[in-house]
Amino acid sequence: MTHYMLSCTSCGLEHTDWQTRPACVQCDTCGSTLDIQYHAEIESLASPPNWQGHPFPLPIHTKDEFICLGEGQTPLIRCNRTGKRLGLQNLWAKLEYQNPTGSFKDRGSALLMTVLKSHGVQEIVEDSSGNAGASIAAYAARSGIKAHIFFPSAAPVQKITQIKVYGAESHPINGNREGVTSAAKDYCAKNGLVYASHNLSPFFIEGTKTFAYETALQFSDGLPDHIVMPVGNGSLFIGAWKGFKEMNGTGRYDTIPKMHCVQAKSIMPVVSSFSGNAWLPTHTSRTVAGGISVTSPPQKHRILQALKESGGAAVAVSDHDILRWQKLLATDEGIYAEPTAAVALAGLHELVSLGIIEHSHKILVPITGFGLKDESPSSL
Amino acid sequence: MTHYMLSCTSCGLEHTDWQTRPACVQCDTCGSTLDIQYHAEIESLASPPNWQGHPFPLPIHTKDEFICLGEGQTPLIRCNRTGKRLGLQNLWAKLEYQNPTGSFKDRGSALLMTVLKSHGVQEIVEDSSGNAGASIAAYAARSGIKAHIFFPSAAPVQKITQIKVYGAESHPINGNREGVTSAAKDYCAKNGLVYASHNLSPFFIEGTKTFAYETALQFSDGLPDHIVMPVGNGSLFIGAWKGFKEMNGTGRYDTIPKMHCVQAKSIMPVVSSFSGNAWLPTHTSRTVAGGISVTSPPQKHRILQALKESGGAAVAVSDHDILRWQKLLATDEGIYAEPTAAVALAGLHELVSLGIIEHSHKILVPITGFGLKDESPSSL
Repeated sequence: MTHYMLSCTSCGLEHTDWQTRPACVQCDTCGSTLDIQYHAEIESLASPPNWQGHPFPLPIHTKDEFICLGEGQTPLIRCNRTGKRLGLQNLWAKLEYQNPTGSFKDRGSALLMTVLKSHGVQEIVEDSSGNAGASIAAYAARSGIKAHIFFPSAAPVQKITQIKVYGAESHPINGNREGVTSAAKDYCAKNGLVYASHNLSPFFIEGTKTFAYETALQFSDGLPDHIVMPVGNGSLFIGAWKGFKEMNGTGRYDTIPKMHCVQAKSIMPVVSSFSGNAWLPTHTSRTVAGGISVTSPPQKHRILQALKESGGAAVAVSDHDILRWQKLLATDEGIYAEPTAAVALAGLHELVSLGIIEHSHKILVPITGFGLKDESPSSL
Repeated sequence: MTHYMLSCTSCGLEHTDWQTRPACVQCDTCGSTLDIQYHAEIESLASPPNWQGHPFPLPIHTKDEFICLGEGQTPLIRCNRTGKRLGLQNLWAKLEYQNPTGSFKDRGSALLMTVLKSHGVQEIVEDSSGNAGASIAAYAARSGIKAHIFFPSAAPVQKITQIKVYGAESHPINGNREGVTSAAKDYCAKNGLVYASHNLSPFFIEGTKTFAYETALQFSDGLPDHIVMPVGNGSLFIGAWKGFKEMNGTGRYDTIPKMHCVQAKSIMPVVSSFSGNAWLPTHTSRTVAGGISVTSPPQKHRILQALKESGGAAVAVSDHDILRWQKLLATDEGIYAEPTAAVALAGLHELVSLGIIEHSHKILVPITGFGLKDESPSSL
């Protein structure tokens, strides 16, 4: 008997063992995703490599089996100049772009590939707007697993090159993001391969929850009041929220930061559902923030739950403001974020304007991806 | 009285206070560089932020003044697949590309800019093949110092974009690397600005020495037998050697790893001096390893001294082998190195072939720069 189980995030059905398909067998039509829960009676706390805090539960047995490329343990730095610009006295950035492939996705990929490897999987399929594809490709190489990565043919050339260089088989797909997912699923079905979707896999989310544990360790004088994140499929958002809730459950922390979601005005499914403002995707919907260009996030119900339970808000920002904050972050702080990562700063500005975040609050912003990964003349 | 002094690495003349010019006043014609030495009678051990090992001397007073973007504390991972390919059982990589701007240069820039800032410097000039320029530009932004970065107009577009995005004034120069340095020096003289050369500054080298202290902390069961590095101007090579010597002097370590230098066959001034093999630069000398495309390193005497004192060797490798090892490192390990960084692996192969490094030895290779910084079709 293993020390964890998978339960459906919609109907609650328990899946007692590891699944090669990431969705609930009962909710097959709606495709509801699974979540990992731990058996309280089985002690198994296998923290990530180099973790120096209090152990926490993960769906592995020992840290030695971890497929590691040096992910996590990202720096936390104070941003006084940006804080002053926004009228905030206590603003911090956690530099997720200092992960091995240049984005936070490595937290999820490391755990997902560790679990797949431990179950003897030898070949996988993944679809991505670019960052997760590059990340999965790197960890697949490290694991000795063959990876097929499906991505939009319009993805930034840097991300496409990165996917290829790790030796993954690349599958560029014309059309929108949803078409890429369909093509990946079709390929899986046709070839009998494991669909290692970072958007759906409970193991990916379980990897991103390390963000919360690190945040708690780094803020030794108390958790931040607010965390502001760009949200596409929401894997960091859901993972961080899960981590904070878990810590809260141990009694060592009595609060959870307010978790705020920021999306682009042109593609804002979560903001629309949260606020009730009408928004419908069209085939021409575009944003410079390619990493959150997701019209229909499969785990939207969990993002909305995290927003509600943590007391956060959801706001949308313009491409103009995203690029403006990308530039300001580089010149004010020396932080080169990709446009998707700068979304959080544009959103923070909006949250301050709305009075939701105040001068004296302690705020954390993850810088989710490296500017080198999505360079365009517009970013200068 | 400050706790350190600067002494000429050629004539030994002591400079009792901070200098805005990085070379010895006495050796003006040969331009010999300065080295930092600490007064034994003044206790001042101000380690970098987040450093958790035994304190060590730096030319700052408190860690609070450190201009930090999360540099250093880079991951160490074991490379079993690459080791097997080379017939080595104990091979490790230290992932220097996980520094804030994607290269090890951030170690030097952080300390150099900290010292400049503490002395009230407001505007600087630097010249670079790309990585150091981007790094200095980032730390200048973080410090609020205006930076002029001179670089070859043929530098990779990713590095040029990065220099610009941090808000530095960019000065692309046609012609070879030496011409870029001349243009930077002329600009300094004409405008009365500080020449913050990473190639010459003793503070930059003092920053890179943190590599050695971290290595010692991470290899808790004993230092590696060998370290293999790409060498252009040699700032990491000299800095690491200085760090190991310093540790050795405290009595806590009784050995220094053998430090091996690898250069490109087309541009190999150190290999030539070390081995006595004839080599002369020409205007058409080129290598895919742009970061070590340096025909006349100003601190060659110190690189040769480190080679000799540590018992290391110097070897040269072909562009073909550099690109081959770049690809192998990505597909075997999930490590995306820039060509300059892959030079070390090609050199390690050569050192094993020559019998200088053996099966059972413990070997460390720094992966000095991120592949995202120097992408070309040739790397696929």
